[in-house]
Amino acid sequence: MKRIDKLVVCGVGLIGGSFAMALRAAGMVGEVVGVGRSPASLERALALGIVDRACGDWADALAGAGLVLLATPVGQMDGVMAAMAPHLEAGTVVTDAGSTKSDVIEAIYRHLDRQLAHVVPSHPIAGSENSGADAAFAELFRNRKVVVTRLPENDAAAVSLVRDAWQTCGAQLYEMSPQEHDRVFAAVSHLPHLLAFGLVHDLAQRANAEQLFGYAAGGFRDFTRIAGSHPEMWRDICIANRQALVGELDAYLAELALLRAYLLSGDGRSLQAIFDDARRARNAWANRAED
Amino acid sequence: MKRIDKLVVCGVGLIGGSFAMALRAAGMVGEVVGVGRSPASLERALALGIVDRACGDWADALAGAGLVLLATPVGQMDGVMAAMAPHLEAGTVVTDAGSTKSDVIEAIYRHLDRQLAHVVPSHPIAGSENSGADAAFAELFRNRKVVVTRLPENDAAAVSLVRDAWQTCGAQLYEMSPQEHDRVFAAVSHLPHLLAFGLVHDLAQRANAEQLFGYAAGGFRDFTRIAGSHPEMWRDICIANRQALVGELDAYLAELALLRAYLLSGDGRSLQAIFDDARRARNAWANRAED
Repeated sequence: MKRIDKLVVCGVGLIGGSFAMALRAAGMVGEVVGVGRSPASLERALALGIVDRACGDWADALAGAGLVLLATPVGQMDGVMAAMAPHLEAGTVVTDAGSTKSDVIEAIYRHLDRQLAHVVPSHPIAGSENSGADAAFAELFRNRKVVVTRLPENDAAAVSLVRDAWQTCGAQLYEMSPQEHDRVFAAVSHLPHLLAFGLVHDLAQRANAEQLFGYAAGGFRDFTRIAGSHPEMWRDICIANRQALVGELDAYLAELALLRAYLLSGDGRSLQAIFDDARRARNAWANRAED
Repeated sequence: MKRIDKLVVCGVGLIGGSFAMALRAAGMVGEVVGVGRSPASLERALALGIVDRACGDWADALAGAGLVLLATPVGQMDGVMAAMAPHLEAGTVVTDAGSTKSDVIEAIYRHLDRQLAHVVPSHPIAGSENSGADAAFAELFRNRKVVVTRLPENDAAAVSLVRDAWQTCGAQLYEMSPQEHDRVFAAVSHLPHLLAFGLVHDLAQRANAEQLFGYAAGGFRDFTRIAGSHPEMWRDICIANRQALVGELDAYLAELALLRAYLLSGDGRSLQAIFDDARRARNAWANRAED
């Protein structure tokens, strides 16, 4: 990839921080400038050496920038783009790391409409229940998927730069339409997070919550790991993608209604058929997916 | 603990095999005899050195037995107890490893009513998505909880033998009533398994299942790990404990109805409040529970 003299990362948390660290480790960036709403987080990123400079001013941050990564929760993208738009230079390429794409692209058309050739939406399929700059590491994206949902207006060189940057981070690149992206991730990511948050909340409210958690074991630990994820980030994702997510939730509620009917009628044969199918599909996937 | 000259394990899979291996490693057993419905599984346990002898005949297996562990799926307990009852000697102590207790205790009263002093129900809170004798290992119960749901008719020496055996395996002992046990585990174990099986089954049936699984990542892997569990074992648990499980499922459906309403109305503030509570509760538990 072409070396980037100045990389700007807005939101220097797990994703933004790891991106900067990976490109720096590959020797592909000059200066890394951090932008964000929390001075404390930026100070931390500076102290960790993830950014060279924290910048409170978009005009300063964007002057001469080669690449900008927007890695804030998706609910902030609209405001961030509105703020940066007046200062974005013609030669700067912009990408984002939002977990939803339709809403981010709406914000792009709203605020960055003069730069559509150079704004290339993307989504790295990587994360952790830990968040913040302290959780960042250069290897986060290694062998992970990144989905690019390019705009019809994107120019080829801008798309190449964004793809090359993610590839330099070790990622595998895929492309999809924003709508397809949002449907797929509603099913395999957003819904499981909603379900895990819901289960823990349900139990945590009980009068005997302490007893319940006291007997929870390894299966519960794995099932609820994603309920330790960043609440604001997941609020934003759920709200941004709520149409697809409610569709997925309704499909799941129909599945639970079926399971409930089998339980009530004591239909062990039908329950086992579902469990058998699930185990087979899950194990086949896990074996294929193993790193 | 008192050394057991002859240990009988019925169902030499993950749980039964690990129990035998742990007691043998501690030098607390003489002969280990395996009983089970599947000759192939027994042969495998024999080949692995987990049992010294596979026995197709309850009269032979139970002659002179000091301790019997029933570690079959709970749906088989009734038949197993009926078969062993005529051959059970007065001096033999029996326990089980069933994940549900009310149904197992009903079977005990039905078939082992002449031996109630010596039949002490228990439930080790340990497992894995792997099953079978090949998955067994002596350390499985180390620092895990075992719940004993003693019968009013149990004599103290029999309870001590069962508690000592689990303690020798490295477990921490707790006691509860069978009803309380079944309610607690419906919430923290049986429901999460049902939910995970259901989600994977829902997705696996889709026309685009391959695409969906192709983009599933680490969060999905953790959330669905328990959908790799033994289908027959979990069918039996769900059916045996279906009254408490449907109660838990209905509480969860009410939680999902709330989440769905917040999504539809775009109420991010209420969603985040739930996510915040869940994250706090989950992380507090995970930090306490860490080994």
